[in-house]
Amino acid sequence: MTDLTLQEAMNRTAAGLAKAAEMGVPQNIAIVDAGGNLLHFSRMEEAWLGSVDIAIKKARTAAFFRMPTASIGELSQPGGELYNVEVTNGGLVTFGGGLPITGAGGRVIGAVGVSGGRVPEDVAVAEACLA
Amino acid sequence: MTDLTLQEAMNRTAAGLAKAAEMGVPQNIAIVDAGGNLLHFSRMEEAWLGSVDIAIKKARTAAFFRMPTASIGELSQPGGELYNVEVTNGGLVTFGGGLPITGAGGRVIGAVGVSGGRVPEDVAVAEACLA
Amino acid sequence: MTDLTLQEAMNRTAAGLAKAAEMGVPQNIAIVDAGGNLLHFSRMEEAWLGSVDIAIKKARTAAFFRMPTASIGELSQPGGELYNVEVTNGGLVTFGGGLPITGAGGRVIGAVGVSGGRVPEDVAVAEACLA
Amino acid sequence: MTDLTLQEAMNRTAAGLAKAAEMGVPQNIAIVDAGGNLLHFSRMEEAWLGSVDIAIKKARTAAFFRMPTASIGELSQPGGELYNVEVTNGGLVTFGGGLPITGAGGRVIGAVGVSGGRVPEDVAVAEACLA
Repeated sequence: MTDLTLQEAMNRTAAGLAKAAEMGVPQNIAIVDAGGNLLHFSRMEEAWLGSVDIAIKKARTAAFFRMPTASIGELSQPGGELYNVEVTNGGLVTFGGGLPITGAGGRVIGAVGVSGGRVPEDVAVAEACLA
Repeated sequence: MTDLTLQEAMNRTAAGLAKAAEMGVPQNIAIVDAGGNLLHFSRMEEAWLGSVDIAIKKARTAAFFRMPTASIGELSQPGGELYNVEVTNGGLVTFGGGLPITGAGGRVIGAVGVSGGRVPEDVAVAEACLA
Repeated sequence: MTDLTLQEAMNRTAAGLAKAAEMGVPQNIAIVDAGGNLLHFSRMEEAWLGSVDIAIKKARTAAFFRMPTASIGELSQPGGELYNVEVTNGGLVTFGGGLPITGAGGRVIGAVGVSGGRVPEDVAVAEACLA
Repeated sequence: MTDLTLQEAMNRTAAGLAKAAEMGVPQNIAIVDAGGNLLHFSRMEEAWLGSVDIAIKKARTAAFFRMPTASIGELSQPGGELYNVEVTNGGLVTFGGGLPITGAGGRVIGAVGVSGGRVPEDVAVAEACLA
């Protein structure tokens, strides 16, 4: 078993913060475990306060479904298979910026959620957390 | 530091109430600080009760993202970058009527949210609060 | 019918704010109508942020039961008739600081809720709003 | 202005984590800003999952009232002045483990909340965060 440790969460967050600083975009970075429970969170100076909750919900959404949040967003549109799934689970976020974190054997051991910029910026920082 | 004072909130609300009376539209006007916490609120006679919460959420949304609520609404439509972001933060409102209030140096020190009429009417009153 | 008007709410709030300033205690003052819906709210500089919600809930509690909040608190203690009634209605507050506002014929037309100081201070300001 | 920075929050958390490790008690440590909005969070391996929310609520409570959570708990007991205040503000925590963080001139710039052990253990870690 390779649970996500606090140290690994800190390291991944540090990589994301460095990327965000390089991009000049103040971000919120949340990391949850495989159960969707918060493990680590950081908000940079000047980051939107409304993105605190979005970052955490992105991470939870990615952990709950073991896939990128944007993959769910493709299905939750009007007419889609999962239309308005966002109102479940106390609020899901299904646009980009949430990515699962995999451990040994490809098992999902947690997820990262990033919010604070345009969605492509959030995704870039989330990817930096996974690298 | 130029925090939003209660007196400034009262003055801005008075300007909005005068505009609403002139337009003949009973309105709810909420003002929050930079942290999104309620500072002042007024409901005119005959204003929709359902607009109490909408006015407060518009103000919080504009403060949380330091931009007009309508700017977020452009991105939260089906297929948009922030689709269904409204389910986060205990409920956001992303149509017009919420505007940030800026202080010295252009820093956002709070926001106003107006609800009670058609959206263009709400926006007109919110703008009167900023004038 | 003598519904509570916004102007009356503003006048009552002004009386309460003057009392609070005289006492040197930064307060939150909420006024609701007979239906428990928010009509007016003011937060003084330096008032506790956690008292925003308490002031509103005191006013709603006093309007919902048409009696002072403290009267309910006598019944909601362990072993009491209304034990833990505070968890209902999305949260009630049953200690002092919420008082009903009566109109013609003694009919309850709304309520005031004050929070920001010690309970006797809150009650003193609420009473000033009623005077 | 001396807002709480992410770096200060990280440093204070690191001090708390070191203390918790020394005590052998897995803890959750939350830090919020003066407005009660989350700034930083860390959960140690084996810490109770139910303490994630408690740590965050302790920090918010201490920021919202600018005092240690335990000071409120003295007043919120049965028969006390603030009985059942815990049901307000979406849930307050009024036992020990939440402490305000002060900046220049003694102004409260945020708060720390610790949960994961016995209350005296939580308080010891919160105090280490302030040292």
